[in-house]
Amino acid sequence: MSRWTFYTAPGTCALATHIALHEAGADFDLVKLDFGATQQQSPDYLRVNPKGRVPALATEHGVLTENPALLAFIAQSFPQAQLAPLGDPFAFARMQELANYLASTAHVAHAHKRRGARWADDPAAHEAMRAKIPENMTAIAGYLESQIIGPWALGERFSVVDGYLYTVGSWMEGDSVDMTRFPKLADYLARVGARPAVQRALAEMNG
Amino acid sequence: MSRWTFYTAPGTCALATHIALHEAGADFDLVKLDFGATQQQSPDYLRVNPKGRVPALATEHGVLTENPALLAFIAQSFPQAQLAPLGDPFAFARMQELANYLASTAHVAHAHKRRGARWADDPAAHEAMRAKIPENMTAIAGYLESQIIGPWALGERFSVVDGYLYTVGSWMEGDSVDMTRFPKLADYLARVGARPAVQRALAEMNG
Repeated sequence: MSRWTFYTAPGTCALATHIALHEAGADFDLVKLDFGATQQQSPDYLRVNPKGRVPALATEHGVLTENPALLAFIAQSFPQAQLAPLGDPFAFARMQELANYLASTAHVAHAHKRRGARWADDPAAHEAMRAKIPENMTAIAGYLESQIIGPWALGERFSVVDGYLYTVGSWMEGDSVDMTRFPKLADYLARVGARPAVQRALAEMNG
Repeated sequence: MSRWTFYTAPGTCALATHIALHEAGADFDLVKLDFGATQQQSPDYLRVNPKGRVPALATEHGVLTENPALLAFIAQSFPQAQLAPLGDPFAFARMQELANYLASTAHVAHAHKRRGARWADDPAAHEAMRAKIPENMTAIAGYLESQIIGPWALGERFSVVDGYLYTVGSWMEGDSVDMTRFPKLADYLARVGARPAVQRALAEMNG
């Protein structure tokens, strides 16, 4: 395949796809957008991804977005890396169920801390959203604690959803979640965080 | 396979999975929850789905939730129905990309109309969220208008994501979107709405 280009920004959910690319052993060019300079809204980037968000992956077939779609695509594109239960529709659905919960419930809840302007114009409403972050993210941490089979999210085999759960899980302390209440989740996050692919992605983002 | 049980409620996003089940020709028992009586929070239902949401599908392997995961699972479980581009990872990812946009952007935006209590406690904040619904849903309708290839979302072949786009698209007028501005989307919604599987799911919900 032709070389892919991965568009990302530090501190975003795109880390999930970044980790998957390294776990897969993919060869790709990295483009780091500067969200502080709202580079994701530049005409050049909007030609890549009209949504003005990350992650985006430019492939030989076109540009793909949305973490859950990208994670399954990377796993299917590198079957030898065994990053998803591709031969078992129910196990694959379990992986997707968790990825979708992270995207449409957990990430959305977290986004109300700093991205309230997406859903209301009134600054007082943004403040009311921020006030509910600890409660909502604590409830989500409790749900995730109950979902991890161990040692990885789906059990004995690491999969692409682990990098996504790691990404969202790493926001919890900043969202005032008391992680001592969720020891299984905390242990899990440390275990994922120690993987070379995760360390490499973090180094590329923070470098 | 053993008979499945599908948990749903009228007027919810679970219609997407309901349509997929009928398009696939699946044989299943239907359980309609009464959201007016908050039946989704009853102890009995929370044992089925601890999230207290719909859709949920009880299968011989366990209970599955989250529309995008369910749609791919149904397509993979009934390959003869050809409801997804299963042999082409990029085309499959395109389908998932749209499903995930519907789940984590479009449905989330819509939910701020009546479910603001998920993200803030202050009634004034809920009012501020409601005020932004027409603007956000109009922007989403514009994006969807640009994405439909035609005659179906992904092109010549109907897929499970069409029932999901139909479900979310059917909320647009109620969210004050002027659909005359989006003729391609409006035509598409009428085309999907005319399918027997869609008519059957709607009749089962409204009956």
